[in-house]
Amino acid sequence: MSLFRPLVQQMAGYTPGEQPQESGWVKLNTNENAYPPSPRVLEAVQQTLEGRLNIYPDPLATEFRKVAAELFQVDPDWILPGNGSDEVLTILMRTFVDQGQLVSAPYPSYTLYETLAEIQGARFQKIQLNPDWSWPASAQQLAADSKILFVPNPNAPSGNRWSDADLLSLIPSQGVLVLDEAYGDFCDQPHQGELLKTDRGNQLVVTRTLSKSYSLAGIRFGFAVAHPDLISGMRKVKDSYNCNTLSLAAATAALKDQDWMQENTAKIRATRSYLIEQLRHLGFEAVDSQTNFVWCTHSDREHERRYQELKRRKILVRYMQFSLEEGTLDGLRITVGTDAEIQHVLDALQEIG
Amino acid sequence: MSLFRPLVQQMAGYTPGEQPQESGWVKLNTNENAYPPSPRVLEAVQQTLEGRLNIYPDPLATEFRKVAAELFQVDPDWILPGNGSDEVLTILMRTFVDQGQLVSAPYPSYTLYETLAEIQGARFQKIQLNPDWSWPASAQQLAADSKILFVPNPNAPSGNRWSDADLLSLIPSQGVLVLDEAYGDFCDQPHQGELLKTDRGNQLVVTRTLSKSYSLAGIRFGFAVAHPDLISGMRKVKDSYNCNTLSLAAATAALKDQDWMQENTAKIRATRSYLIEQLRHLGFEAVDSQTNFVWCTHSDREHERRYQELKRRKILVRYMQFSLEEGTLDGLRITVGTDAEIQHVLDALQEIG
Repeated sequence: MSLFRPLVQQMAGYTPGEQPQESGWVKLNTNENAYPPSPRVLEAVQQTLEGRLNIYPDPLATEFRKVAAELFQVDPDWILPGNGSDEVLTILMRTFVDQGQLVSAPYPSYTLYETLAEIQGARFQKIQLNPDWSWPASAQQLAADSKILFVPNPNAPSGNRWSDADLLSLIPSQGVLVLDEAYGDFCDQPHQGELLKTDRGNQLVVTRTLSKSYSLAGIRFGFAVAHPDLISGMRKVKDSYNCNTLSLAAATAALKDQDWMQENTAKIRATRSYLIEQLRHLGFEAVDSQTNFVWCTHSDREHERRYQELKRRKILVRYMQFSLEEGTLDGLRITVGTDAEIQHVLDALQEIG
Repeated sequence: MSLFRPLVQQMAGYTPGEQPQESGWVKLNTNENAYPPSPRVLEAVQQTLEGRLNIYPDPLATEFRKVAAELFQVDPDWILPGNGSDEVLTILMRTFVDQGQLVSAPYPSYTLYETLAEIQGARFQKIQLNPDWSWPASAQQLAADSKILFVPNPNAPSGNRWSDADLLSLIPSQGVLVLDEAYGDFCDQPHQGELLKTDRGNQLVVTRTLSKSYSLAGIRFGFAVAHPDLISGMRKVKDSYNCNTLSLAAATAALKDQDWMQENTAKIRATRSYLIEQLRHLGFEAVDSQTNFVWCTHSDREHERRYQELKRRKILVRYMQFSLEEGTLDGLRITVGTDAEIQHVLDALQEIG
């Protein structure tokens, strides 16, 4: 007898990227930021330590929501904070999707969407992208009946970005389009929630994370930006105290120091251009990424061998495999680290051949 | 058109206790610990700040699980960490309960169980306790068909504790009994997971929090202790990175400093005895609490007036109301604060009359 829900019994569960706990690795596999967070973040946490950890955090995240709202030029009731944007995705699923309803996402994209749909008992539809990562002609029709269409904006693992017109055309007729902008700050021209203010904005949710551009994967903080009508339902599903005192202080301080984030993302954009150029030079096909990672493939298809060879040299990149209608797509996703780290992985790739 | 799930549209959402953000309050309404956390907790967080917040936390919470496992004399695969024990309760619901299935809890008890059942689309059954907080004769039969029976051990808001025999007899036939031991450390004789090692242990889950006895409501940390067969399913539902680097460090350090926790809980037990005695002296009925709060009622039923009068004096206690089959039960739940705080509330109650 299994006590679990049948769907939990059957599912495999999500496998996160490797997180070696010992040092000595060049870690380019989970799209962390190579640069440290703003010193103001550390100061803010320090100050909180002098305060009172024995009392509950502010369940309304008043200060954080105020700062996030200013950034998006909306009112604070447009903001819902989460324990990482992954939790925000879970909240979205539990707010909008009943058992048996349809959840869609482009494919390949972030594999967690499927796991979350599975846990919710939803039907999950992969909308297979064209080989050049553009949307298929059927996308609009396929997406139409979804309760949620999740779209990474820009996409992972490819790093490409679609046009606003493409995105707006995909809004489901009776559901919401979730623009998962985990990597949004790395775009050459980042969005600031402009699409939320269009006349389709009441069916749009933008999610953001502090893990990537703000160098704070360790504190688990993300948030949603959406019309208060949508936020009101999400708030009922959210745990009252889902964000802790330390992470709230860290996240608020991080958002306040936009200069720090902008400087780091600018450095990463420059390194990204170099990485793409050099990968092509080494014979790889590399997508013109708008994120802090680059997806590359080689015509010899020996991606797994290269992943293993890199790992032997204590360089971790992500080897990914996707089953498509017409066979398997695999490749390497390399996080844009520091210049030194990127030179190191490029040298190793040259050596490996 | 509502885009929400109908059940989310209809539900009211959970209302947490008041959390005034300004100082000057005697805050005895949400069962926080009046004493600060161990200094080792602050040191541990400090050290983490010198580390790398830009990388993800350990998704396996290796160090924390090791320390928690030692405390319960089990292997680390018996431990599942959560973002507060509230998140652990959510994970339990999503692991074990399908839409339309039965979830039960004693009533009155922690009101969050019903909210979580609602979000999961479960049927929720309140097993109404006797006026002396003992189980009704029908409890076993009522609980039998539950997928989960949640039992606060000891109970909230009453603070009473049931016998092990009572608890074991309530295990559902095809479900799990969740012993929510948020207040377990305040018992005169705290459990250490002994019931998990009985022959019914494979249908038992114990949840613990660091919010109460470890004075860490601000960091949001809880965990489940259960047979690895049960934990394996819960792990599939859990977000990979549900605990952050700072809270993991804080929680691990807190569990390691058992002396600190024991000293504080001993102080609170002593203050509790005094509070109960004095409340009775003032004409209240007060339950023999095994927690860090005391439930009291007065034969004049003027509980709401007293709550308001206390609030006017900047003393917050919790006024609670429960609809019973035969009318309404209301009363005051007073957190056991410091001796000075408790003297303050007692003096005020005497003055208020």
